[in-house]
Amino acid sequence: MSERLGCLLDPQSITIIGATNNPGRIGGMPLDMMSHFGFLGQVYPVNPKYNNMFGYKCYPDVESLPVAPDLAVLAIGAHEVTAMLKRCHARGIPAAIVYAAGFAEAGDEGLALELELKAFVKQSGMIVGGPNCMGFANLNSHVYTAFASIFKMVAPQVGRGSTAILTQSGNVCSALFGMGRERGVQFSHFINTGNEACVEYSQYLNYLASDADTDSVVGYIEQLRDGPGFIRAAHQFAKQAKPLILYKAGETQKGSEAVQSHTSALAGDMAVYRAAFAQMNVIATNDFAQMVNLAYLAKFKQRRGGQRVAIMTMSGAMGAILADKCILAGMEVPTLSLEDQKILRSGIPDYGMVSNPVDVTGNIVNSPEFALAALTTLATSPDVDVLVVTAPGYLMDRMSEYLIEIAQTTSRLIVAIDTGKASCREKLSQAGVAVFDDAGRAIQALGPFCQWMTRRTEALRWFELQERTSQAVASKHTLNQTLNEHETRKLLYSFGLPELNERTAVNAQEAMIAAEQIGFPVAVKILSADIPHKTELNAIRLDLQSAEEVAQATNEILAAVQCAKPQAHIDGVLIQAMQKGIAELIVGITRDQVFGPVMTVGLGGVLTEIYRDVAHRLLPIDVRVAQTMIEELKAYALLDGYRGRPLADREAIQRTIQSVSQAFETIANIQELEINPLLVHEAGRGASAIDALLILKNQ
Amino acid sequence: MSERLGCLLDPQSITIIGATNNPGRIGGMPLDMMSHFGFLGQVYPVNPKYNNMFGYKCYPDVESLPVAPDLAVLAIGAHEVTAMLKRCHARGIPAAIVYAAGFAEAGDEGLALELELKAFVKQSGMIVGGPNCMGFANLNSHVYTAFASIFKMVAPQVGRGSTAILTQSGNVCSALFGMGRERGVQFSHFINTGNEACVEYSQYLNYLASDADTDSVVGYIEQLRDGPGFIRAAHQFAKQAKPLILYKAGETQKGSEAVQSHTSALAGDMAVYRAAFAQMNVIATNDFAQMVNLAYLAKFKQRRGGQRVAIMTMSGAMGAILADKCILAGMEVPTLSLEDQKILRSGIPDYGMVSNPVDVTGNIVNSPEFALAALTTLATSPDVDVLVVTAPGYLMDRMSEYLIEIAQTTSRLIVAIDTGKASCREKLSQAGVAVFDDAGRAIQALGPFCQWMTRRTEALRWFELQERTSQAVASKHTLNQTLNEHETRKLLYSFGLPELNERTAVNAQEAMIAAEQIGFPVAVKILSADIPHKTELNAIRLDLQSAEEVAQATNEILAAVQCAKPQAHIDGVLIQAMQKGIAELIVGITRDQVFGPVMTVGLGGVLTEIYRDVAHRLLPIDVRVAQTMIEELKAYALLDGYRGRPLADREAIQRTIQSVSQAFETIANIQELEINPLLVHEAGRGASAIDALLILKNQ
Repeated sequence: MSERLGCLLDPQSITIIGATNNPGRIGGMPLDMMSHFGFLGQVYPVNPKYNNMFGYKCYPDVESLPVAPDLAVLAIGAHEVTAMLKRCHARGIPAAIVYAAGFAEAGDEGLALELELKAFVKQSGMIVGGPNCMGFANLNSHVYTAFASIFKMVAPQVGRGSTAILTQSGNVCSALFGMGRERGVQFSHFINTGNEACVEYSQYLNYLASDADTDSVVGYIEQLRDGPGFIRAAHQFAKQAKPLILYKAGETQKGSEAVQSHTSALAGDMAVYRAAFAQMNVIATNDFAQMVNLAYLAKFKQRRGGQRVAIMTMSGAMGAILADKCILAGMEVPTLSLEDQKILRSGIPDYGMVSNPVDVTGNIVNSPEFALAALTTLATSPDVDVLVVTAPGYLMDRMSEYLIEIAQTTSRLIVAIDTGKASCREKLSQAGVAVFDDAGRAIQALGPFCQWMTRRTEALRWFELQERTSQAVASKHTLNQTLNEHETRKLLYSFGLPELNERTAVNAQEAMIAAEQIGFPVAVKILSADIPHKTELNAIRLDLQSAEEVAQATNEILAAVQCAKPQAHIDGVLIQAMQKGIAELIVGITRDQVFGPVMTVGLGGVLTEIYRDVAHRLLPIDVRVAQTMIEELKAYALLDGYRGRPLADREAIQRTIQSVSQAFETIANIQELEINPLLVHEAGRGASAIDALLILKNQ
Repeated sequence: MSERLGCLLDPQSITIIGATNNPGRIGGMPLDMMSHFGFLGQVYPVNPKYNNMFGYKCYPDVESLPVAPDLAVLAIGAHEVTAMLKRCHARGIPAAIVYAAGFAEAGDEGLALELELKAFVKQSGMIVGGPNCMGFANLNSHVYTAFASIFKMVAPQVGRGSTAILTQSGNVCSALFGMGRERGVQFSHFINTGNEACVEYSQYLNYLASDADTDSVVGYIEQLRDGPGFIRAAHQFAKQAKPLILYKAGETQKGSEAVQSHTSALAGDMAVYRAAFAQMNVIATNDFAQMVNLAYLAKFKQRRGGQRVAIMTMSGAMGAILADKCILAGMEVPTLSLEDQKILRSGIPDYGMVSNPVDVTGNIVNSPEFALAALTTLATSPDVDVLVVTAPGYLMDRMSEYLIEIAQTTSRLIVAIDTGKASCREKLSQAGVAVFDDAGRAIQALGPFCQWMTRRTEALRWFELQERTSQAVASKHTLNQTLNEHETRKLLYSFGLPELNERTAVNAQEAMIAAEQIGFPVAVKILSADIPHKTELNAIRLDLQSAEEVAQATNEILAAVQCAKPQAHIDGVLIQAMQKGIAELIVGITRDQVFGPVMTVGLGGVLTEIYRDVAHRLLPIDVRVAQTMIEELKAYALLDGYRGRPLADREAIQRTIQSVSQAFETIANIQELEINPLLVHEAGRGASAIDALLILKNQ
């Protein structure tokens, strides 16, 4: 599909159906723009009332066009759309953009129109953008098929643009374009997808991933209709090292209701979106200004970045502010080596700072050439990935030649923050120095940008793991019937789950023998796939000290379950050794409506629930991904020797997580799989899957 | 003091000592500015080499000035400063600004210079700004005593400014001024305080609180040298309903080290700053752009604001985005009444939203007059405090007359977000509509601004409580010696702490009798003011079931303590009834180096520590403030019937917090006071101060 999108996004010839000579109306605006900006292809307005408009010859109908153009833009009402698409198709036009609203977003009648539209598109093979969209623009080819007034209201682009905007809202597309132009961002594409009746978000993404004109994408989404397609597209972005910068709306209940009301679709689980974006190295944002600053920074992506920042300032205050901001944005501000500090001290007065932040003080006015020495020290320090230099305008101007010199001699990312009105800004930017006018705006973009640089290898590793796993899909097994706790655990053993000291029994006599073999104290639980929640039925007894207690517990449990759930299939009881651990975890997989199977890991207990301290990941998950999951938990401290506690067996947790993931991936018809609690022991002593639950898909 | 600051901040006559005719140097810049912007007072440059400069007659020395001016600006080196101040004082000049660096921030030699300066100032009564500052500007009087290049690089102010900048850094002062002017903010004062050797931050604040020219202050601080002075100043701001918008640096360890290195002073505990600001309704910020947007919003402070926002949009996406942003910024987006929805639906198509956010859809192009009906509905709805309207430029222009009409008929705060390039922006702003160009920037400022409006009454109530309490300081008691746990609790009983079922005993015999009277099970603990940490010495036994167990425990505890701490003064043992509760809290007061006594409340346990889920408040604290403390805890859910748990006795918690505060306020020489744990029971059943610790100040 994605190569065929060229007809929508880079057409050589275009007809506008419903054209008008009023540049303020939707049927006139694209013509006005293409005429104004000088589109070099063919333009054919269709309107029987006119002979020409905006300098283009006008045609009475689509049938009388001299050739079949690449693209038809339909500026007509919803009810006329499908009929017109049929005429376009008959005329040999391969692609169309539909502006009209009043489709799936507008009740039952609209939905019927959309279904009719989709049916025709499927049957004919036409490529149709929208409906309910504002149209597109290819800023490098001067194709304007959008009825957006913003293009003429901003400074025109000089040279080729390399940032694409791809949104599920026309208004957001316009707003981002306006803000981006103000920031000096040059755009390649302006795309808003509307109802995506035919071409879905991920398909546009795929096109842009291989588009030579596009180096980065800023996007806005309300819902993804094709999660797997999105994963494939994000993989392409990672391979091409193109930043994909996305705003997902619906962070709050109210916002998500508004999304739903707006697009008639569920917003999806925000926590899963967030985790999936991080895992795929998609830059998540919820701020337009940050997005355009990230698009600006993307121009410097060939430079070498990372998490370790050296800050050079003329002001102690700005040093403190930047150190705070960098660290809060997830970066490090490493203390420089004593050798580097010594070199710096040679030109910095006593009251300046040399350890990082480096405050060369206002004294630099008197010896601006020292700036070069200081910059050289920072640019060659082995402790530093990125240089951030801040100065008020006139001092930035005095330092600019040194900054340019350093930018030429180092491949490290250099960011200059001019808090005044320096005249050198454009010159610096051209020379490879990223220029900002405010510390807050700079670091708000630099933080996620450096994270994107740092995480790329890890994301690629996961994409490859994911690709290998999904290629193995053909070999998937299915379970004929659901499994009880003991069987679930046995299944997981074959994927590497650490084994548990437990036995099954069908009556009190067997239970007593089993308990003696295990050793006291023990726990006794009902064993039945039909009873996922044992506590509610009083079907579990803990800390039993003798064979007699075990026998009594077994009889009571069996009787209680038979009484409460006479239909349940009872496999007997489980006898487990009682164990103490360092912490209890929950390890579970559910199916997300967008992304499919999602693993959730967290510490057990009510507080981690209240603090929402859980980690999510898309499957597949190996031990390395599992490690990032547990390290991401704030409560990880409890596994990591917090205040003299023993270290937990983190390797056993990671193996457990991997085994659950692998079991889920291997068996096609699992709906949910959970270990709760996973009792974690001291390092080297493993982890115990005290309970395990498997739920099959409805058959 | 604060009225005398007029000499610094609004002088009628000024001498510049160390004047030069080079407008790029610090001794020339202020002269150039005052000449350029037309200062109407007298200016006397002092430099023996010149006859005049910048159109001002020049004098050879301060002694030969024709009159004693209000203010001397010292553009001379640190070593010459105090000698020159003496000559200024002898000439009758009441005030001076000292630019020079090289004082306390610059090692021992500088510190000696600063001490000399301070001694002279104290003895002479001169008012001295700085040293190590950039100077000031009074934008309304055109007084420019600052060597800042920014003034000439931004659009000149038209009309009177009403926002003051007050920073502890000259560079930050300049940066905020530049950003503010770009945002259209008009300034009254430009003040940076330098080392504050003589005039401290709070004294400037006090001046600005009563300055008729100043309606709001944006400030930057690294440290407060006078916490109580700051509280008094913040009280004045609350009384005058002037927003005080402050950036405190040192949020991270590294940032706080940089602050310390920069100013040779401790940054202070950030969590306490944060809590104190909230309690005093000081708007806390850490972003320059947000600060200038707040200063812009402050112009509209006469309007009625609040937490409940109605959102009107032409784009479903912008509706979802704004709903998310408002809620994440602490505001509410209430669902409108069915009557209001019905009125709105009459003009909004099916695919638009009427419940709030209200999406009138692009259809509004065809009937812009419906915008007035919709705006009127929102402006008169009893569910709404603030209106936020967003539209792309041309639609905002079409609606502008209706927005202006509504602004005239309602006193509610109205915010217009133009995502395009509307030409009506200035007109709207003049008419009382706050205008922004981006949803993110708008809500980032609107959230804290509306919170400021909402919290003012509560803050004033606390300031009055605080004033009353500190007036009662004369009647403070002191303790002659520290108290043991039992005595501490008895002290707190007199301030309303709920009483505990406990007895003391001096030997095993008495302990057995006491335990019988209390009823089993009981706990036995050592009773000694010399042993604050009982567990370490094995001096506590829980859950004792019989008199024999109590006797044995008592003997063991007394023996263990006598062995481990033979010097400790032992008062005997405590016998307490064992109790179970819903939750355990910690309630404690420590002394903060800036703000004095600070209460900390949190749930006990390692997780609340890891998640840093505690509330802080400055004293005094009554039950109402105590209520806000516990409600602020994320773990408050556990006290509030989370998932079917019983409700905790929150009134008892509040009374306990109040009693601890009152005891601390009443007794002058307590250093620390803590209840840990406070065992909280079901609603109506009180709370038990299981342990109590009092530490006296070093005597």
